[in-house]
Amino acid sequence: MLQTDFQSLIQKAIDSKTKPVGSLGRIEALAAQLARIQNTLMPVAASCGLTLFAGDHGMALAGVSAYPQAVTRQMVMNFLGGGAAANVFARTLGVDVEVVDCGVAGEPINAPSLLSRRLGAGTANAIERPAMTAVELDKALANGRAIGGDSDHDTACFGEMGIGNTSSASLVAAKILGYPVADLVGRGTGLADDGLKRKQALLEAAAGRTPDSLPADHALMEYGGFEIATMTGAMTAAAGAGRVVLVDGFIATVAALCARELSPGCAANFVYAHRSAEAGHARVLEALAAKPLLDLDMRLGEGTGALLAWPLVQAAAAMLRDMASFESAGVSGPA
Amino acid sequence: MLQTDFQSLIQKAIDSKTKPVGSLGRIEALAAQLARIQNTLMPVAASCGLTLFAGDHGMALAGVSAYPQAVTRQMVMNFLGGGAAANVFARTLGVDVEVVDCGVAGEPINAPSLLSRRLGAGTANAIERPAMTAVELDKALANGRAIGGDSDHDTACFGEMGIGNTSSASLVAAKILGYPVADLVGRGTGLADDGLKRKQALLEAAAGRTPDSLPADHALMEYGGFEIATMTGAMTAAAGAGRVVLVDGFIATVAALCARELSPGCAANFVYAHRSAEAGHARVLEALAAKPLLDLDMRLGEGTGALLAWPLVQAAAAMLRDMASFESAGVSGPA
Repeated sequence: MLQTDFQSLIQKAIDSKTKPVGSLGRIEALAAQLARIQNTLMPVAASCGLTLFAGDHGMALAGVSAYPQAVTRQMVMNFLGGGAAANVFARTLGVDVEVVDCGVAGEPINAPSLLSRRLGAGTANAIERPAMTAVELDKALANGRAIGGDSDHDTACFGEMGIGNTSSASLVAAKILGYPVADLVGRGTGLADDGLKRKQALLEAAAGRTPDSLPADHALMEYGGFEIATMTGAMTAAAGAGRVVLVDGFIATVAALCARELSPGCAANFVYAHRSAEAGHARVLEALAAKPLLDLDMRLGEGTGALLAWPLVQAAAAMLRDMASFESAGVSGPA
Repeated sequence: MLQTDFQSLIQKAIDSKTKPVGSLGRIEALAAQLARIQNTLMPVAASCGLTLFAGDHGMALAGVSAYPQAVTRQMVMNFLGGGAAANVFARTLGVDVEVVDCGVAGEPINAPSLLSRRLGAGTANAIERPAMTAVELDKALANGRAIGGDSDHDTACFGEMGIGNTSSASLVAAKILGYPVADLVGRGTGLADDGLKRKQALLEAAAGRTPDSLPADHALMEYGGFEIATMTGAMTAAAGAGRVVLVDGFIATVAALCARELSPGCAANFVYAHRSAEAGHARVLEALAAKPLLDLDMRLGEGTGALLAWPLVQAAAAMLRDMASFESAGVSGPA
């Protein structure tokens, strides 16, 4: 069937439901997207998994973050112990969680429930040199594809943890979009004015090392975190496997930007979940013409925004699948 | 304990959680509200019920709606059959549904699962005369209080169905707020331009019958639907019983406005769930200084917006109750 024919079938199905035309707003648009992704008028949103990618950044040691680098590792332990915001939200919403070490600083973490996909003990300091080699980038993308491609869930949330990773994401996005990095720098975990000024200066120095504009793979190699590159691979593969991909906040949106560049078809499966309060997010969303479902003034990462949008995906699928039609329910249309 | 001391305890508890201060944005503010409502640092959001109030409006026969009056009754049958958007969302989100006939036109509906609290076969035509008597209003409020006060759920969603009820709600709100009714008139279920013009003229005629400003009980008696008055009573009692009240869209927000006027203390328990696309909603929200959690371009009613906010309430309670603290998880604070 032609795409346009299927789209009009979807619209007809939505408009036959017992509600004024268009009255479920963005839930209707989301339902239509789910129908297109799953190629059915009876889309399913039965189960969702959250994968948390953790990695450290050489840049963090230069002072781009309000928090010490050790927090990445401590938060991985917190994820494994079930005490972080992402765990708590996931439990509440019935979402499974897995945690991936993509390259946390220090010795490898010894924990049976942790997926170890380490590319090293953190990236190189991207202010001075490329964050990773081409071989490391390829490995990170392949690790991500293997993780994103292998899942029983119809919907995937991806989250991240990495002290310094708003800096990394700002640089990657700036180079892909050809924007000055200053346009994409924000307070991250909560820098005060002087810290923000230092971060800006450091990121401008980092950006100055390379041309104004870079393709996604070069941008990731120069500035990307291991966790961002691994997430990028996971997004392409999850989309390729026909899953709905809930895109979290700033850092996940930059991974989605990379995924789109590397594998354009995957964008059709992306649902932008929430608008982060991190300053750069609005610019990247604008470049993607993306309007997230939620705007709750959050800026935590960890996939917390993606998780909160999961019930909306469930509601949208159920609307199209289970709502009565005017005909089946014997309800009159407009006079 | 003094209110201010408890508020600072709540803030301290939220700030001790393993996340940058403030990084969960409105979920933190919601968690704090839940703590105040339940007077505990361990708030619970374990179960939620949706009560759907249905009633007809004499005004509908004058042509204020795009849909015929018979749709109210047909939709009640659809609610009872589980096929409406509210049913589908509620099932997805694990919310119980009950349906109350507050005064649907025609003979009483004979269905065992329907709660019959009929005040008549629809209100009088409020364009020409008061919609209901003082005795009917008192009975509707008392019915609502009995329903809202009697529940095992910690959280209540209230929804409505009634052809013509955006007209009723616009008039009630205009009189309570002292606004020209034209400021609060919208397309309802989907009037085209000519229909909207007719609706505006009819509502201006209706508004002209009474003084510019009325107390809530008089406004309800003059213009209110039986379902709006019953919902008003339910909101005051649910709040009085310590439940969280998720306030749906335009019509539910007008009921909340009435409830606040009749019983000011109840407002502390109200969580504004979603911003309706119905034109008048923004004005009423502004008057209440209320900023809903969701903005999904919906305008269906039936409690659909309230339902979609229920997972956010669950997440907020779980955050405060279950998240690890920096101390318990051994995570470092800012450098």
